Amino acid sequence: MGKKILVIGGVACGPKAACRVKRLDPSVEVTIVEKGEEISYGACGLPFYLEGQVEDLTELTTTPVGVPRDVNFFKAVKGVDVRLNTEAIAIDRKSKKVRVKNVKDGTQEELAYDQLVIATGSSPVKPPIPGIDLEGIHCLKTMEDGARLKQAMESAPGKNAVIIGAGLIGMECLEPLLKAGFTCHVVEKLPFVLPALLDEEMAVPLMKHITSKGVILHCGDGVESFKDDGKGRVSKVITEQTEIDADLVLLAIGFRPNTQLAQDAGLEVGRMGIVTDAHMRTSDPDIYAGGDCVASFNIVSGSYMYAPMGSTANKHGRVIGNNLAGWESTFPGVCGTGVCSILGFNVARTGLTERDAKAQGLETVISLCPAPDKPHYMKGSKLIHMKMVAEGYTGRLLGVQILGPGEVLSRIDTAAAILKARGSVDDIFETDMAYAPPFSPAIDNLIVAANVIQNKMDGIINSYSPKEVKEKLDKGEDFVILDVRTPKELEQMKLPYENVVHIPLGMIRKKAQDLPKDKEIVCMCKISLRGYEAARMLEGAGFDPEKIRILDGGIVAWPYEKIVNM
Amino acid sequence: MGKKILVIGGVACGPKAACRVKRLDPSVEVTIVEKGEEISYGACGLPFYLEGQVEDLTELTTTPVGVPRDVNFFKAVKGVDVRLNTEAIAIDRKSKKVRVKNVKDGTQEELAYDQLVIATGSSPVKPPIPGIDLEGIHCLKTMEDGARLKQAMESAPGKNAVIIGAGLIGMECLEPLLKAGFTCHVVEKLPFVLPALLDEEMAVPLMKHITSKGVILHCGDGVESFKDDGKGRVSKVITEQTEIDADLVLLAIGFRPNTQLAQDAGLEVGRMGIVTDAHMRTSDPDIYAGGDCVASFNIVSGSYMYAPMGSTANKHGRVIGNNLAGWESTFPGVCGTGVCSILGFNVARTGLTERDAKAQGLETVISLCPAPDKPHYMKGSKLIHMKMVAEGYTGRLLGVQILGPGEVLSRIDTAAAILKARGSVDDIFETDMAYAPPFSPAIDNLIVAANVIQNKMDGIINSYSPKEVKEKLDKGEDFVILDVRTPKELEQMKLPYENVVHIPLGMIRKKAQDLPKDKEIVCMCKISLRGYEAARMLEGAGFDPEKIRILDGGIVAWPYEKIVNM
Repeated sequence: MGKKILVIGGVACGPKAACRVKRLDPSVEVTIVEKGEEISYGACGLPFYLEGQVEDLTELTTTPVGVPRDVNFFKAVKGVDVRLNTEAIAIDRKSKKVRVKNVKDGTQEELAYDQLVIATGSSPVKPPIPGIDLEGIHCLKTMEDGARLKQAMESAPGKNAVIIGAGLIGMECLEPLLKAGFTCHVVEKLPFVLPALLDEEMAVPLMKHITSKGVILHCGDGVESFKDDGKGRVSKVITEQTEIDADLVLLAIGFRPNTQLAQDAGLEVGRMGIVTDAHMRTSDPDIYAGGDCVASFNIVSGSYMYAPMGSTANKHGRVIGNNLAGWESTFPGVCGTGVCSILGFNVARTGLTERDAKAQGLETVISLCPAPDKPHYMKGSKLIHMKMVAEGYTGRLLGVQILGPGEVLSRIDTAAAILKARGSVDDIFETDMAYAPPFSPAIDNLIVAANVIQNKMDGIINSYSPKEVKEKLDKGEDFVILDVRTPKELEQMKLPYENVVHIPLGMIRKKAQDLPKDKEIVCMCKISLRGYEAARMLEGAGFDPEKIRILDGGIVAWPYEKIVNM
Repeated sequence: MGKKILVIGGVACGPKAACRVKRLDPSVEVTIVEKGEEISYGACGLPFYLEGQVEDLTELTTTPVGVPRDVNFFKAVKGVDVRLNTEAIAIDRKSKKVRVKNVKDGTQEELAYDQLVIATGSSPVKPPIPGIDLEGIHCLKTMEDGARLKQAMESAPGKNAVIIGAGLIGMECLEPLLKAGFTCHVVEKLPFVLPALLDEEMAVPLMKHITSKGVILHCGDGVESFKDDGKGRVSKVITEQTEIDADLVLLAIGFRPNTQLAQDAGLEVGRMGIVTDAHMRTSDPDIYAGGDCVASFNIVSGSYMYAPMGSTANKHGRVIGNNLAGWESTFPGVCGTGVCSILGFNVARTGLTERDAKAQGLETVISLCPAPDKPHYMKGSKLIHMKMVAEGYTGRLLGVQILGPGEVLSRIDTAAAILKARGSVDDIFETDMAYAPPFSPAIDNLIVAANVIQNKMDGIINSYSPKEVKEKLDKGEDFVILDVRTPKELEQMKLPYENVVHIPLGMIRKKAQDLPKDKEIVCMCKISLRGYEAARMLEGAGFDPEKIRILDGGIVAWPYEKIVNM
């Protein structure tokens, strides 16, 4: 008889590890215990079930050819025993036994193991806010949550929805709620949306987009309590700054790793989850852990982070399965890559934000590059904003943020591959990215962003961020903003400040001498590519390079006041 | 006075090099000579002008904000002199002078240079076939070609179009020709379409798609002559095998680098173009060359190839500009990345095909992975076929081919980044690719393909390619094809061979003993993921692993006979 492998948790990492080891070593006996009713489901599909893109919840629990991934399937196809409604309540590492409880009838028993896999997943954060258990307040994590929320969307007494938390799940649920006719409020403690993913200047265009769709954002505001309608149902969300009518509340503050079981068993657990080595082994060599319950090692920052992702959980499962079968295998860590679609805006991030990098004390150089995702002459071309963060001095890529209606996936995945290789902005330039007008511009957005950083590192672009220019304006500093766009562009959109001087790029060589040589000049255009050319021209015309700057990202990336006539 | 830089050629690389060096060193005097009427245009947009996506040809010659990139623009904005209609006819390297001719009036003069850039581009291949100069036979390279072809599409005497050559340009022109009501024939010397980009097994589904749209393919056939209608106009294309009525012919056999000028000047020129080092310097240290006239170094094969691309030309221009300004800079080479859209099919390639790799004598391992580009439960999910080629023994990635109606760009660019880093299939697995259901499956297609290669290298997948199985069938070998799909799937599509035995995956553990232990068993399903599971089960049940194989890519990738009822 083969060795006994017990897997706690049946959503993503657990089943993957179980099936992988069984394929590699058919002699092992593998059992999965899962406290819920379902196994191996696509929880990430829940927002799309709410929205209607996924018609039936069972599609999330079947294989691509429609076979249910149930207990029988796992037995017949995978050779793996599954026990549903079975919760692991204690691990006895000395005697190598796990105490489990049948959640239906409460009976308990002990299951022996030779090797154990902890894949207990995560739970929605539910802070002790008064009224948090009222009817009408939902989370979205399990299949049951999904079914309950869908039903609640149909039967809510009114059409006011409040989402608490502007993270990925909260943002993904805007579309289904708006489609179902709800007025949506979002309450976010931090001053901008997707704070774990984006820098503030990148969140601003996204916030403008969301509010243009009718969503009411309450950023920098916290929930104080939920008001009872007198019948045990939520009627209002009371925040630090206001009161919001609520017929439906989605708690989407985030997830925390389910680590209690591991902690009680004396395994090493950190703030970010169960700690494993690169083999996904816990502090007990016979116990592996993976999926949403573990801390992820971030290969860019060199430190642990919490990054629960279905993609990562599957990789963990494969690596654990290999190691269980005696095939030494490692998982090198993540880059914190994420992507989502929010009301027609695509948002993606990989690596570190500028804020992350600065918090680590890293020297940074950034570029802000809003540009079309395809050649401007193609009808389907759409804007994407890109922010790239590199390490000063070396140019090592640290991270990329992209958002907008255009294509983001190819750029974020390419950047993730370069982060994996610990590549630099030079490596981006040197990557032979695919080019054809229906897909991408001749000089891809990622390469433009890398070139801007190269130019900054070489000292031929000296720039201010939008924030730095805004601070100078607010302080009333005496400097010139040189807008080099065409008169037609200026009519459509301009900055409402007295410091602005307008000279179209084609006239700069002639009119440069009219500009003051003793003041700082901040050159700009739509995206500051022409601003950069103007800066080079002024330097060529004898202006003091120390006084010439460009505005990162031009007027398109300017997140403050603009006069728009479009 | 600064040094004189002369640039020959004004389309992509030339203007880029000229503008870059002028930005870096305003003291230089830069002149571009261009024999045509236009400068700095987006030639890659021509097929989309024919199709109507680009409404006006001038969009290809203006900046994104609508400013014409003409002689005045280059002078005023870039500080660069441009002389149109000026052909360079000889380089005198000793006296550092270039003899140029005004193509309008025939006058000649000599222009002195300190440093020279050759960016003479490429010309369509025009073999000496009888009748090739008849009216109605077109190429597509320059703006003039585009205007002429568009006009010809409107005024052709009938609606029979023949495309000679099934390369990128020929394939991209199918859409505009079909849209304009033409019946399209394609004559290709080699036995399949896109032969420079794809392996034959990958070209087959594309050929099926193209013919399903009404295109008539003549692969493995060559043109012998063009028949005159008696008035100097083409009326028929005579091939080795047939005659095709022709009101319009598009010659799209490929391009060859314009190297005569360089060759006459005694510079090193190879079969693939002008030879440069990584600084884009020719065999004369004062002469640089870039764009479509140079040989590209392929970083995967380690040898020169011909890969004219607008993206590469721009990079060459930047590197040349840097070096001209005294900033040492190198271009490391290409991977042969390409992408195109053909009648709703996306096709992409990076690195080497299996054929390329075998021709170099490399040991290869491949995977064939047809799968949806997003989770199967998402409405917008579409199929993509993927073929990955890795080096045997090391697992180094050699190349990827992808095609289908689904998303290909993110996968091909990610693969290109991994090729750039000389990564392996392990590096693909370890890349933190973005995951969310609207974008990609939890285990991305690229990662599945890498995992299959890992499994093959680890000896737990032994497979036959479709071609190998077809050869066994044709030879009448006694073996079993084990189809483990569901009965419902079998109804929809099956292989029409007597060797096929059907046992659904869930029954294999029970019915394994009914299968012959002395014969080879080739396991398969839709995409052979379940085929792989069946193979593992049989091995677990005591079957000789030497006799168990899987069919790469399953029935979806099977390019031969199938019975389809859908």
